[in-house]
Amino acid sequence: MTSVDLNADLGEGFGVWQLGDDDAMLEIVTSANVACGFHAGDPTGLLRVCRSAAQRGVRIGAQVSYRDLAGFGRRFIDVDPDDLLADIVYQIGGLRAIAEASGSTVSYVKPHGALYNTIVKNREQAAAVVAAVHTVDSRLPVLGMAHSVFFDEAARLGLRTVAEAFADRAYQPDGRLVPRRQPGALLTDPVAIAQRVVTMVTAGTVPTVDGSPLDIEVKSVCVHGDSPGAVRIAAAVRDHLNAAGIELGAFS
Amino acid sequence: MTSVDLNADLGEGFGVWQLGDDDAMLEIVTSANVACGFHAGDPTGLLRVCRSAAQRGVRIGAQVSYRDLAGFGRRFIDVDPDDLLADIVYQIGGLRAIAEASGSTVSYVKPHGALYNTIVKNREQAAAVVAAVHTVDSRLPVLGMAHSVFFDEAARLGLRTVAEAFADRAYQPDGRLVPRRQPGALLTDPVAIAQRVVTMVTAGTVPTVDGSPLDIEVKSVCVHGDSPGAVRIAAAVRDHLNAAGIELGAFS
Amino acid sequence: MTSVDLNADLGEGFGVWQLGDDDAMLEIVTSANVACGFHAGDPTGLLRVCRSAAQRGVRIGAQVSYRDLAGFGRRFIDVDPDDLLADIVYQIGGLRAIAEASGSTVSYVKPHGALYNTIVKNREQAAAVVAAVHTVDSRLPVLGMAHSVFFDEAARLGLRTVAEAFADRAYQPDGRLVPRRQPGALLTDPVAIAQRVVTMVTAGTVPTVDGSPLDIEVKSVCVHGDSPGAVRIAAAVRDHLNAAGIELGAFS
Amino acid sequence: MTSVDLNADLGEGFGVWQLGDDDAMLEIVTSANVACGFHAGDPTGLLRVCRSAAQRGVRIGAQVSYRDLAGFGRRFIDVDPDDLLADIVYQIGGLRAIAEASGSTVSYVKPHGALYNTIVKNREQAAAVVAAVHTVDSRLPVLGMAHSVFFDEAARLGLRTVAEAFADRAYQPDGRLVPRRQPGALLTDPVAIAQRVVTMVTAGTVPTVDGSPLDIEVKSVCVHGDSPGAVRIAAAVRDHLNAAGIELGAFS
Repeated sequence: MTSVDLNADLGEGFGVWQLGDDDAMLEIVTSANVACGFHAGDPTGLLRVCRSAAQRGVRIGAQVSYRDLAGFGRRFIDVDPDDLLADIVYQIGGLRAIAEASGSTVSYVKPHGALYNTIVKNREQAAAVVAAVHTVDSRLPVLGMAHSVFFDEAARLGLRTVAEAFADRAYQPDGRLVPRRQPGALLTDPVAIAQRVVTMVTAGTVPTVDGSPLDIEVKSVCVHGDSPGAVRIAAAVRDHLNAAGIELGAFS
Repeated sequence: MTSVDLNADLGEGFGVWQLGDDDAMLEIVTSANVACGFHAGDPTGLLRVCRSAAQRGVRIGAQVSYRDLAGFGRRFIDVDPDDLLADIVYQIGGLRAIAEASGSTVSYVKPHGALYNTIVKNREQAAAVVAAVHTVDSRLPVLGMAHSVFFDEAARLGLRTVAEAFADRAYQPDGRLVPRRQPGALLTDPVAIAQRVVTMVTAGTVPTVDGSPLDIEVKSVCVHGDSPGAVRIAAAVRDHLNAAGIELGAFS
Repeated sequence: MTSVDLNADLGEGFGVWQLGDDDAMLEIVTSANVACGFHAGDPTGLLRVCRSAAQRGVRIGAQVSYRDLAGFGRRFIDVDPDDLLADIVYQIGGLRAIAEASGSTVSYVKPHGALYNTIVKNREQAAAVVAAVHTVDSRLPVLGMAHSVFFDEAARLGLRTVAEAFADRAYQPDGRLVPRRQPGALLTDPVAIAQRVVTMVTAGTVPTVDGSPLDIEVKSVCVHGDSPGAVRIAAAVRDHLNAAGIELGAFS
Repeated sequence: MTSVDLNADLGEGFGVWQLGDDDAMLEIVTSANVACGFHAGDPTGLLRVCRSAAQRGVRIGAQVSYRDLAGFGRRFIDVDPDDLLADIVYQIGGLRAIAEASGSTVSYVKPHGALYNTIVKNREQAAAVVAAVHTVDSRLPVLGMAHSVFFDEAARLGLRTVAEAFADRAYQPDGRLVPRRQPGALLTDPVAIAQRVVTMVTAGTVPTVDGSPLDIEVKSVCVHGDSPGAVRIAAAVRDHLNAAGIELGAFS
């Protein structure tokens, strides 16, 4: 392996509110998971980040979510699968028009926040997300967690799946992330994170919270765009990967 | 002239709230102006009405609006033209994905409510709407009021314009509609409305509030989907047009 | 027992969208659970229904909810208890100002929809709702389901609890309601419903879906304001109760 | 004059999004204009800033707004006066319950953004705001611009008015602010701003954009909470006022 994708959540402001430094992140990442308006992202802000991504040749993905601005899409909502399907179709469509107005398009779909976590196990919602993506464009790959019912459902419909690993989130031995509210859930030291990513990508393993190594499949590495020091972390990850002989490049 | 388009605003519920009888209207009209989520229209409801339109071969247009659920898009908002452009692109994109998921697509764009009225005169907002439509697809026609800066701006960018007349709204001698809050703004008698439409379509004139006739260009007739008796009015318009030798047919 | 309270959910439109016939219901019920803007209820509509309730001497309660207009508060949201507490305080405050502007006030609190169902069992969210009510006014009674953790938590803080029974919802032998999506969940025949309510109030039991009687404590009877035939059902309940010698009167 | 009030807009985040440094500002200002949820301010964030204000003895005012999260209340909305009245009543009520839960209350009302600017001249909307405040509590003072129809209407209903001047906004010779989008609208140098405020408070004049002095009545000075360097500006204003023998103190 000589190249790996680096993705980050971008476009996550709303109106006057900003979150993270999108332009600085776009100088580093190869895939931009752009919000679609349901957990964040007003159309003007989405247009701005899509233009910026297009100018830099960074690929755009639709970061679809529950409808929950107040909760930033981080709260599970027991939404009816039919409603979820329609919500996802609408979100991809809205962002796609914005991306096309920027001279690019939507190249993949990545669920956000609580929806991301829910469809690791919840088959009804996973199937709704997959059906929505398939309905919009059956050639769109989905970015997410390996060994999830989300990926099972995607495979069942013939959608391509791209497994990602999290650069700065702690893993449990069973492969799940340590919940965000628990201490130690979020790693913050750029060098430690970068070394960890090199191990993930070169050895295919990640150390878990109890010290045991976890086998992990990595076609893309996720760095967070909104954590403090996000840009420095992303740069460290890129630099350490480069030093280990690995280029950043969008997943094929 | 042997045929005219009949359009109505549909898909204007939200969640549990319904407005009008979309299925009954879709049995009559030839063009459905479907809400896009900003003044009305949750994705599930939009998917339902788009499927129903597609099954009946009724063409779907994007009824774009200010972002204002609480005001149903009926209040002027002094939105920045750049924001308006992005809002319109997003709305068309969202509905287009829903329409395509229904086996149809978005075939035209019609502004809604206060935005419709504003861009008769407001050049900045008119230009933003036109630029948004042109950006999404320069072959999309716009439905609106003749002799408006909206149509001037559309012509300037080479967008096709389709002039509509209102079946059940009173006209002032200068061609503007009587404001909705004034008495007599809304006609309600199906037969009177239907006869008036026949005059519009065959003679190219409409009687105004002071009795004088107004020359009017009609490529499409708008009937309201949410007024009491909307379905009976639409049916009466169709029947009287048919009796006068005029078929209903989507504008070409 | 010579009197029982009759409550209904009112003020549940939003902007142009109406739900149910609030004025007709206010002629019958003795307690109005008025929406607070988070699942339904724009301020203008809330002011209208509060004035109408005040004029008729019908008591106003705050029908608090998850923040979810698109889902009408019917979807469980895994909201952080601290956020839920603040959401409830804000909602009660907003409605109380509207009620006071109408010459009345908020006399009790009743959770709505998915929140109502969740806090039958979910202690964290139940405690948050109770703490919110207690914070606003420790003399405000809460209306809800007997034998719930909601009532346990309310009792722990010294809030007065008022047990209600549902006129038109089917019960399971364990005291829970048959979920709304299952067949038979909703009774629709006015006479059957009214007779059932008389049994509830006079005998303290209700027949469950398997035919066995369930002991039930009834200080208030809930009729739905938005079901088809809601007004006829409420009137039948009132008439049958009267015929059995029971007056309608607000709980003391 | 030996004391003047210093006010700032606070609580203007929403959910995950933050704006400005509320706690640092609360160490300096004497009146906190707290958002009410319509242009900014989720209940959890409002509760946090109200508690912080209460702990520091800073008075809380309700910063009421158009319903416009996406536009941050900075866009004129042609809202019906009846709707505006209800919206304002609801907002004051919501915030008041939050403030009371923090051991404080709402002590005054200040309109925000486009509403603030609109009611300088628009009598219908000014009257609606005034009627709303009067309905909630006729003893609540309103904070705003002198020589406005807002203050005329407030006086007509007997509401107390508190005239404010803007520390960091440029004035036109007719007393209006230079619109926010024009160059030079916003002053940024802390010392220049602080000296200007001392002149306002001691001499009762402010230099306008053409150099001519404008007579100005100042019972409160507004500093912005969200501009870059907001805290340093506020501190400079306080320090220069103190050096000129003027204490900061809430308006009486």
